[in-house]
Amino acid sequence: MKRIYLDHGASMPVEERVLEAMNQFIVKDYGNPSSLHTEGRAVKKLVGEARESVAKLIGVEDPQNIIFTSSATEANNIAIRGVANRNKGKGNHVITSAIEHMSVVNPVKDLSKNGFDVTFVPVSPEGLVDPEKVNEAITDKTILISIMNANGEIGTIEPIREIGGIARDAGIYFHSDCVAAEGRKPIDVEKDNLDLATLSSNDLYGPRGVGALYIRKGVKIQPIMYGGGQERGLRSGTENVYGLVGMGKAAEIAMQEMKSESVRLTKLRDKLIDGVLGNIEEAYLTGHRTLRLPHHASFRFSYIEGESIILNLDMEGISASTGSACSSKTLEPSHVLIALGLKHEEAHGSLVLTLGHANNDEDVDYALDVIPRTVERLREMSPLYKK
Amino acid sequence: MKRIYLDHGASMPVEERVLEAMNQFIVKDYGNPSSLHTEGRAVKKLVGEARESVAKLIGVEDPQNIIFTSSATEANNIAIRGVANRNKGKGNHVITSAIEHMSVVNPVKDLSKNGFDVTFVPVSPEGLVDPEKVNEAITDKTILISIMNANGEIGTIEPIREIGGIARDAGIYFHSDCVAAEGRKPIDVEKDNLDLATLSSNDLYGPRGVGALYIRKGVKIQPIMYGGGQERGLRSGTENVYGLVGMGKAAEIAMQEMKSESVRLTKLRDKLIDGVLGNIEEAYLTGHRTLRLPHHASFRFSYIEGESIILNLDMEGISASTGSACSSKTLEPSHVLIALGLKHEEAHGSLVLTLGHANNDEDVDYALDVIPRTVERLREMSPLYKK
Repeated sequence: MKRIYLDHGASMPVEERVLEAMNQFIVKDYGNPSSLHTEGRAVKKLVGEARESVAKLIGVEDPQNIIFTSSATEANNIAIRGVANRNKGKGNHVITSAIEHMSVVNPVKDLSKNGFDVTFVPVSPEGLVDPEKVNEAITDKTILISIMNANGEIGTIEPIREIGGIARDAGIYFHSDCVAAEGRKPIDVEKDNLDLATLSSNDLYGPRGVGALYIRKGVKIQPIMYGGGQERGLRSGTENVYGLVGMGKAAEIAMQEMKSESVRLTKLRDKLIDGVLGNIEEAYLTGHRTLRLPHHASFRFSYIEGESIILNLDMEGISASTGSACSSKTLEPSHVLIALGLKHEEAHGSLVLTLGHANNDEDVDYALDVIPRTVERLREMSPLYKK
Repeated sequence: MKRIYLDHGASMPVEERVLEAMNQFIVKDYGNPSSLHTEGRAVKKLVGEARESVAKLIGVEDPQNIIFTSSATEANNIAIRGVANRNKGKGNHVITSAIEHMSVVNPVKDLSKNGFDVTFVPVSPEGLVDPEKVNEAITDKTILISIMNANGEIGTIEPIREIGGIARDAGIYFHSDCVAAEGRKPIDVEKDNLDLATLSSNDLYGPRGVGALYIRKGVKIQPIMYGGGQERGLRSGTENVYGLVGMGKAAEIAMQEMKSESVRLTKLRDKLIDGVLGNIEEAYLTGHRTLRLPHHASFRFSYIEGESIILNLDMEGISASTGSACSSKTLEPSHVLIALGLKHEEAHGSLVLTLGHANNDEDVDYALDVIPRTVERLREMSPLYKK
């Protein structure tokens, strides 16, 4: 059976061209960038080039303001705990939204156990953060605002430029988790008023195990890990050169192809959304209809469980997700869907379809054939459902 | 010019067989191990297999007691800060040695800024930690002892089994940074009385960006990073499956080949040591002559600077190191060499040669031709040197 992968929000394949770039180096360039000899200097150059490509993708002029990490989770941890702990002399209040990724939620919760006050700004039923509510939450103790660029579970794009402007006017650092947005919409740290931005390699079709953090020059921050002092002392550990080369290449490709690919994916997305909503009763879109990532279609269906949908779609060759892969280990409903105002039972009937390079019109046709009858079959077995 | 790489302590090439194993998966197996669908389950299996291979290498019966990290630096940070902070109700004293890697030294220094007392046990002129001195340092506040298995800068193998026994008798957790030792000498967490052990993938000829931490069942520990709760909640972040597969394969190969490779390297090492000491005046071995890693030859030469030696050897096609690559950014003399009782000017004349798979008898012959004349030439330029 042909398999159709519609779970690019959970993980993405590595682009062939990225893998080629990586394989050029892994065998012959094995030096440590901190070493003084020829092999060391060669890979130091590779790291510099990768840093430049990543910088360019988000409009960062000086590549030195990008540090490489092992993941977006680590970048979010450094941004939030590194800034909060370094600036606690100035204040102990942090503002974030109610729909952040767990790698923002949990560091912020850790801060709240350690003397910080945290405001979780609520969102609209479409998942939008209201900049005015962020503004109202600011106190004279606020040192950091962290609001995601776009949400990976419901696809909603946040008004980060406005929020960044508010933070800048108030003299407060603004961080944004850009993982769901990167490579899918333009990001510009200047126009978007970003002081810190988290990126992941895999979400650009690069290898896993690599992430990056943009830190505007002058931002006061401290490391969360201690060692050899790599990455300007902010992220110790021998550089994962092979992975960084992959992320650099992936960023370069994203720069070139994002525009056309977004147009292509938006068409597929809209067909998928219209097809599902048009052919299934009591099916609802989660997230915003138009302020939405181009690859992202997410729904909820009454009377059935997301997990059953996933397993049944899997048997028909379709890979999809119910909420974030990172929280699939718990049986709790998604905190994102609850923040939209959904009841627990509503939040449990969620289906997230995320498109990528390999998907085409046929895939969407097939999904639109399979999903309605899967939902129908599951509903027929559900004691809650009355035709 | 042929290049001879004698800096395996700084970084190692990825084994062809490891790369093959990795490349089998990177293109087709791109699922997220937390996902419920076929692609997710496939990679979950791969992660489990890699965990088993790493567990076997160090005699761990239940692979669940291995967690994957992004580096040995991260594993050392989790072991030290994760145990210390979780157990501070019990005591605030940590014992370590004076010659640990910076990824142990700096986390421990961070603890000392945050209410902990730290004892740095001194070493003998050969770099040996005396178990009796560890024993004497124990107080009723001691909660953790961290002593490396072997030192990467001077090659000395520490009596960790005895130190582990002392820790066990006293009911204190024992952690050992096994990065320099792994794949070069047998490690057995039971016989060696280890409660926590740090491993790195690259030191086994695996890819960079992956490490592992053994945590004995029942050890009380907390994470240093917060997010999706992967790796039993101790190391959040999407699993770097491709890298883990590489580390697993590298561990498997190390298990099979360590014994014969150690015998082979020991011969090359001894030839290198005898040749250098026999042909250069005022050349001294650093570290222990026999309690020494099989791939490791390290020296100091009077009247000249290690950095000049490295750059001159590099011009002759030999890659070597002066001290740890991780501390090459500072002009400070190595804390390891200072701990041996050397004066600053003595510590500055250090040369570390670390052998690997690709090195053979010819390489050693070439090195023994080049090194004496390089040292001689540099000494002739030195104002301190009088023939």
